[in-house]
Amino acid sequence: MAERFEIVEKALLKMLEDKKYATLRDILITMNPSDVAGLFRGLEDNQIPLMYRLLPKELAAETFVEMDPDAQEILIKGFSDNELKEVLDELYVDDAADIVEEMPASVVKRILKHADPEMRKSINQILRYPEDSAGSIMTTEYVSLRPHMTVEEAILRIRRQGVDKETIYTCYVTDNDKTLLGLVSVKDLLLCSDDETRIKDIMLTNIISVTTQDDQEKVARMLSKYNFLALPVVDTENRMVGIVTFDDAMDVLTEEATEDMELMSGMLPSEKAYLKSSVFELVKNRVPWLMLLMVSSTFTGLIITSFESALAAQVALTAFIPMLMGTGGNSGSQSSVTVIRSLSLGELQLRDIWEVIWKEIRVSVICGIALAVVCFAKIWLIDHMLMGNDEITLMVNLVVCLALAVTVIIAKIVGGILPMVVEAMGADPAVMASPFITTIVDAVSLLVYFMFAQALLGI
Amino acid sequence: MAERFEIVEKALLKMLEDKKYATLRDILITMNPSDVAGLFRGLEDNQIPLMYRLLPKELAAETFVEMDPDAQEILIKGFSDNELKEVLDELYVDDAADIVEEMPASVVKRILKHADPEMRKSINQILRYPEDSAGSIMTTEYVSLRPHMTVEEAILRIRRQGVDKETIYTCYVTDNDKTLLGLVSVKDLLLCSDDETRIKDIMLTNIISVTTQDDQEKVARMLSKYNFLALPVVDTENRMVGIVTFDDAMDVLTEEATEDMELMSGMLPSEKAYLKSSVFELVKNRVPWLMLLMVSSTFTGLIITSFESALAAQVALTAFIPMLMGTGGNSGSQSSVTVIRSLSLGELQLRDIWEVIWKEIRVSVICGIALAVVCFAKIWLIDHMLMGNDEITLMVNLVVCLALAVTVIIAKIVGGILPMVVEAMGADPAVMASPFITTIVDAVSLLVYFMFAQALLGI
Repeated sequence: MAERFEIVEKALLKMLEDKKYATLRDILITMNPSDVAGLFRGLEDNQIPLMYRLLPKELAAETFVEMDPDAQEILIKGFSDNELKEVLDELYVDDAADIVEEMPASVVKRILKHADPEMRKSINQILRYPEDSAGSIMTTEYVSLRPHMTVEEAILRIRRQGVDKETIYTCYVTDNDKTLLGLVSVKDLLLCSDDETRIKDIMLTNIISVTTQDDQEKVARMLSKYNFLALPVVDTENRMVGIVTFDDAMDVLTEEATEDMELMSGMLPSEKAYLKSSVFELVKNRVPWLMLLMVSSTFTGLIITSFESALAAQVALTAFIPMLMGTGGNSGSQSSVTVIRSLSLGELQLRDIWEVIWKEIRVSVICGIALAVVCFAKIWLIDHMLMGNDEITLMVNLVVCLALAVTVIIAKIVGGILPMVVEAMGADPAVMASPFITTIVDAVSLLVYFMFAQALLGI
Repeated sequence: MAERFEIVEKALLKMLEDKKYATLRDILITMNPSDVAGLFRGLEDNQIPLMYRLLPKELAAETFVEMDPDAQEILIKGFSDNELKEVLDELYVDDAADIVEEMPASVVKRILKHADPEMRKSINQILRYPEDSAGSIMTTEYVSLRPHMTVEEAILRIRRQGVDKETIYTCYVTDNDKTLLGLVSVKDLLLCSDDETRIKDIMLTNIISVTTQDDQEKVARMLSKYNFLALPVVDTENRMVGIVTFDDAMDVLTEEATEDMELMSGMLPSEKAYLKSSVFELVKNRVPWLMLLMVSSTFTGLIITSFESALAAQVALTAFIPMLMGTGGNSGSQSSVTVIRSLSLGELQLRDIWEVIWKEIRVSVICGIALAVVCFAKIWLIDHMLMGNDEITLMVNLVVCLALAVTVIIAKIVGGILPMVVEAMGADPAVMASPFITTIVDAVSLLVYFMFAQALLGI
């Protein structure tokens, strides 16, 4: 399907170049706004306003929301004041706030100047909330009902007000000072057999809500857990200020998973897509951790240096260092990634730490023994007998495999505990994944290795 | 909030033990089914049926869906035929199919026997689709309308049929042989000013649909991209067979992200939560990759062995092996994880491979040079001057830093390309992340290191 779309895309861009505007327009109006926005990605800067002006008003606004910030900026800069006002009128408040966040100051000033006072107030309100909070992703446009309304009056109100609301399917029942009393779905309203029923008699009152300061990931997980279309956002006095809808929650889930993966592989998280990121931005995200980890590997270097004489006496030992460190690192990151993900999904709480430790002990002992046995056989059969390396004595083999088993056990326990400790300290446990754990485990595995070598080989 | 819930949980379990059933029931009926299901996780096996029977019928069924398979199995085994039938009648078809998939054969037989014929047929149909396909996560219950209906008739039909449907908010317009013609939202119906308008005049006809065989992740990404509440699933002849709703898409997004993270850190993906997995299951998921990677590190061992004399001549070289391999591995997994995630989000296509290579070349050259410069200064200032290690000559330092720069460059380019190659071969690129890349990069970095040592140190 992606390929079929590619062909269509090429044909449409050709039409633009050939100035077949009427045909192009006829096709564009049958397309979904997301796909139209996708088309703009293939355009030169000067073509963007040209194609945009082909779109009918409503589709234009819907497409505008889905476009990349770069293209939005080009468009806004080229808009007349009237055009800007028209687009703003069509936008939902949360989308407008998203756009404002991405624009340079001069553009923001112009947007706020031309937004109507109600929207300007709402945008300013949303922008005041901390990044990644429920307040920052909510929209202030929702359908509110009063408890004394009848079902018929409620439906009438939805029909009158609904056109500007992001979702009409969940309506919130509030009293005069906006205190949240209950909620009622359009399904409940439609399936209610008596039009004269009062809202207060059919509304759900055990409401699950979040506050403006709650973390966006928590909010998205709650929406997903309860299968809600939207979650009400209230202030500290339980007054309704907005809603977070499922589509924003989906974006948050994807964003947060990407962020965790980036952190887990030793990168600073980035909000930009890979192809959209400049070389400099990518370097900026990647170099800091690489530097830190490189410098911290001074320790492993020091350990090796201080056991130089042991290595000189038994040169065969050096060959197993990469295998030991590698297996240790992999074992540790298996445990840490599992624990980090479980923490972030809410499947694991801090109080479960003893269960984690006990589980990792049992798993790591079995893994460690299994790996050591296979490693012993492999070294003996391949390295000693097949390759005929006589330096690898039975005792050397024993040292390697004992060190391997102990390293795997320590790595898994450390990998299980560290993310929980970091979480307890209020930081993001994802930074405790592979790179960091690996550095710690590297040092540990070398120490264990040389200690066994000293004890068993007497060097 | 999680902690507040914990306190409530303890109080409720205490009530159950003290046999305060009436009070317990009064509280349970105010709770959300997901939270009630959470309570069952804290119960002993014999308490499960006891608490379940306190729930009113509808809440019981909604709670049942959200429970763990273990608890569901206990309940089904204890149900009378009548009780089983009652629960099944309340379930949506896709939920019933999910449950059937998790149960042992004897329980499945009993479920299918007591489901009504319509549901039995639908469950069998859903179970026939491949795992992770759109068909396997869809529900067959949706509201269908006919093109000639008026808005008033449509609303009437929704009111009559809607109670059993998972979503009523998007309705699908089909003709007599179920061919999908268009869709109309309840919002459109409610906001339509003239009740006599025909559905065919207001329905959207540029429908975005998926087929039963499409991958569930693709379906979830489409729902998220277009902000749809549901996507229609059609067969190869464009006949409507079901819908996938946003809540299932959210679960798929979370599941697929977890799976990628597990693969990326060298584990077989698991559908069970960490705390729910037995020690044996965890070992089974973790040991295969550890074994494979351990055995493949034979190569690094061989490389070191074959350069044994060089290492013996310049013992100082050994101390930098971990740093080189570590930095190489981290650099490679940064690139591979970025590319893997971009592929899975659809931000990157196979045709972009040249752009990826060109980008990684530029990024890696800058990263490589920056790291080499810092490394050079660090080695000279700390290892040579501060630690007074005279074995580390200027030439040794140069060998280390040149090898570092080249390793980083190769690692990043390999890390960027390999996942795309794997994707092109139709396999899951996530297995090409850290552990595998690291093993390849380990070998490469050693070869580069020793080649520089031979060339510059003449050993």
